[in-house]
Amino acid sequence: MRGGVRAVLQDLLRGHAPRSYSSSAAEAPAVRPPRDRILTLQSMNPQVRAVEYAVRGPIVVKAGEIERELQQGIKKPFSEVIKANIGDAHAMGQQPITFLRQVVALCTYPDLLDSPRFPEDAKVRARRILESCGGQSLGSYSASQGVTCIREDVARYIERRDGGVPADPDNIFLTTGASDGIASILKILVSGEGNSRTGVMIPIPQYPLYSAAISELNAVQVNYYLDEDHCWALDVNELKRALNQAKQYSNPKVLCIINPGNPTGQVQSRRCIEEVIHFAWKEGLFLLADEVYQDNVYSQDCQFHSFKKVLYEMGPEYSSNVELASFHSTSKGYMGECGYRGGYMEVLNLHPDIKAQLVKMLSVRLCPPVSGQAAMDVVVNPPQPNEDSYPQFIQEKEAVLSTLAHKAKLTEELFNQVPGIKCNPLQGAMYAFPRVFIPPCAVEKAEELQMAPDMFYCMRLLEETGICVVPGSGFGQRDGTFHFRMTILPPVEKLRHLLQSVKDFHIRFLEEFS
Amino acid sequence: MRGGVRAVLQDLLRGHAPRSYSSSAAEAPAVRPPRDRILTLQSMNPQVRAVEYAVRGPIVVKAGEIERELQQGIKKPFSEVIKANIGDAHAMGQQPITFLRQVVALCTYPDLLDSPRFPEDAKVRARRILESCGGQSLGSYSASQGVTCIREDVARYIERRDGGVPADPDNIFLTTGASDGIASILKILVSGEGNSRTGVMIPIPQYPLYSAAISELNAVQVNYYLDEDHCWALDVNELKRALNQAKQYSNPKVLCIINPGNPTGQVQSRRCIEEVIHFAWKEGLFLLADEVYQDNVYSQDCQFHSFKKVLYEMGPEYSSNVELASFHSTSKGYMGECGYRGGYMEVLNLHPDIKAQLVKMLSVRLCPPVSGQAAMDVVVNPPQPNEDSYPQFIQEKEAVLSTLAHKAKLTEELFNQVPGIKCNPLQGAMYAFPRVFIPPCAVEKAEELQMAPDMFYCMRLLEETGICVVPGSGFGQRDGTFHFRMTILPPVEKLRHLLQSVKDFHIRFLEEFS
Repeated sequence: MRGGVRAVLQDLLRGHAPRSYSSSAAEAPAVRPPRDRILTLQSMNPQVRAVEYAVRGPIVVKAGEIERELQQGIKKPFSEVIKANIGDAHAMGQQPITFLRQVVALCTYPDLLDSPRFPEDAKVRARRILESCGGQSLGSYSASQGVTCIREDVARYIERRDGGVPADPDNIFLTTGASDGIASILKILVSGEGNSRTGVMIPIPQYPLYSAAISELNAVQVNYYLDEDHCWALDVNELKRALNQAKQYSNPKVLCIINPGNPTGQVQSRRCIEEVIHFAWKEGLFLLADEVYQDNVYSQDCQFHSFKKVLYEMGPEYSSNVELASFHSTSKGYMGECGYRGGYMEVLNLHPDIKAQLVKMLSVRLCPPVSGQAAMDVVVNPPQPNEDSYPQFIQEKEAVLSTLAHKAKLTEELFNQVPGIKCNPLQGAMYAFPRVFIPPCAVEKAEELQMAPDMFYCMRLLEETGICVVPGSGFGQRDGTFHFRMTILPPVEKLRHLLQSVKDFHIRFLEEFS
Repeated sequence: MRGGVRAVLQDLLRGHAPRSYSSSAAEAPAVRPPRDRILTLQSMNPQVRAVEYAVRGPIVVKAGEIERELQQGIKKPFSEVIKANIGDAHAMGQQPITFLRQVVALCTYPDLLDSPRFPEDAKVRARRILESCGGQSLGSYSASQGVTCIREDVARYIERRDGGVPADPDNIFLTTGASDGIASILKILVSGEGNSRTGVMIPIPQYPLYSAAISELNAVQVNYYLDEDHCWALDVNELKRALNQAKQYSNPKVLCIINPGNPTGQVQSRRCIEEVIHFAWKEGLFLLADEVYQDNVYSQDCQFHSFKKVLYEMGPEYSSNVELASFHSTSKGYMGECGYRGGYMEVLNLHPDIKAQLVKMLSVRLCPPVSGQAAMDVVVNPPQPNEDSYPQFIQEKEAVLSTLAHKAKLTEELFNQVPGIKCNPLQGAMYAFPRVFIPPCAVEKAEELQMAPDMFYCMRLLEETGICVVPGSGFGQRDGTFHFRMTILPPVEKLRHLLQSVKDFHIRFLEEFS
């Protein structure tokens, strides 16, 4: 090793005794078989070991292997792997919203502020953000809670969205994607040991960030089931059942809602939200409202209602008492800027001591990525009708959303044409979560292989068609039912091909195992 | 509330029963005094409550208040607050490295790839990064471990840095700043209850990310003291003492090293590193090497040696057995890009099962910010002598580093001219951690106010001069000694003024309390 020799020589030239460890290391024989590791599956944090995260789990690892095999020229019955496992819009070819990238590029390289390539409204946004950054640079740490002017913009966005319900920038925390906000508030919420451990109520099916965070924090996961027969609606009676049961072995104090639903795609009605809020108020539950798909509503009959707005409209008993944290993100909507890891959390009725504790806890990680904060600013403060960039912005936005609406409809229709597949309407978000019939012979075969039946199904789908979807068992489902989650993000023609391939596969699968 | 009324009207128009909660909410009287909160200091996660993070603690909150008062025109004996509490280079006026920002701007807004404003070498870098991103967009999620080509560049950087010692991209994990990497590996390392809880050995003084992470994870903090009388050197006998003591009440299995030191600024000798590695090998400790200041070495007599390189040069018994994670960041060095939250972790001898567990755990947060990953790429892959951008790059880099070296010397010299202040040489990093004599009367006064004496001192300094530094108690120090941490990042003239102000204040303080 030349570098090693050089280093030893340098040490000699500097008058240091070279490789001085050799004297003190007399106990070390020249070479021994590798020792047992300190960090092993047995010695590691058991709460981390227990975490499962199917969205990037074994099926995605397998998809990567198959991709590499294809690159090596190994023949398969398909020419590419289609990763429909994750809501990653740009990876599926969706183009960034031009205005967002213009603002972030200007913030990144302010020399461009004199370039005629960039519209004036983007420059105004960029200058304003930079003025709120230390040294006018995206390279400075922001306050732990986020850049002040961006928090102000978020608050104004919420006020517009919620028809004038007031929002306080001091209640806004910018985050590293919504996941970071959710994990942070859960971290501060959990406590207790044994039967007094914090119970966290989550929908089943759920987005597995929740189960993973609960496991890491050694809290108790309390499942409430969404009603598949009624478009995955949330039924308050089911909340009651789950809560009463959980009280026997935990201290349930958090209720998580995902609306629009992930992986289920339902959009909650106003009445349902009111009932949930009343339930949380009555039972003393802290509400987490995961609203990252608030811009992704496709059904004509549905409308997004924020928990915050409904809370206010239910009157002061609720709006001054119910503790709520709600979440949004740059990753979804029509922007799809997952890689920027931008997001915000709005808290309501948080005790001032707790707000201080939250700031302290977040300050240990210093701040969310400032370029992600800048991206979040454009999400909440897009071009207005009187601005030059408006026509292009609105055209790009509507193109994304109308295509998604079309694909939502297409997916529902084509799935429901397949015998043994049943798919609820995709009212919002960006996933289908169809129920698939898996014949008893296939269930037995899967059990032989020590696999969940839907994992077996999805693995076969991947191997035969190159389509990568996530088994329902990764999200949770009623015993004996099987599903998978698939994004609707591939371009229309590819999605059509994908749906046809699933159909053909499913029919073959039924034949093989019937 | 107009919006509320409008919403109710909309509901009526849509045929929904408006405000339907009111029927089921019969139990809710119109208005009651606010209820007890669910989430309080008493009910919150006690491990989070126990966290302290002085770098953004009470003194920084106070500095913010004073800044607001100055803005409101309230007269003070100074005209601005100088925040020397945190290593935030750009906030102190340091300019970004042009090439880094050019590459990130090109990645952000690829339309610029045809712009003559940008040099060809920056475009080559940007194209290569984009080709490794899903959909060629920074807006796609990357693999949880980071963008492949950036991990390759990190591996090559490490090989160059370490004189040819091999580095495997598969052992590189891109992170959200170094803090995220450190917290992640600690999270996977801790386990046990009571006396078998994981002990984590950290230097005192330490950077408080460590104590905060240990507290959050309910691990045991095991202090080993650096030797202030010998330039804050690490003494292996002190490691032994600390370890033996800790074995009585914990299961010590991690040894954290910060080199160059934060807050202490020492650069460890090769001999010292060898001794530490041998100690870790012998005692079966997992090594964490925080090397984020690897480019910040100022003393002529000092040189940065990475733990990885020394480990390899000690021979296969060490290089194939000692488990090591080392960390680097975009935030420090000469780039100072804190806001991008870029960083990497290199792991060595990690059990394959654990590597899989680590990937699983990281995948829950999806990926580090991709723009921060792009910034990290430029840190490890800067312009080369044959490239157009090299002259400007090297001039900018050397300007930053030579100015820092000058300020390190200046700070040491001026502090040591003050009676009652003693400052070790600032061999590296970007902080001074001078020892200050606090007279017994001032200690008594502080105790009366229920403040740590150095907190009392720093608060007085802030109130009288506008200078914000962090009390030594926030980093840990030997009982009865007092220090503060101050960055050397302010521009030279401001730093000179700052040091003079501290001197004048200190003399006044001694007079007042003698």
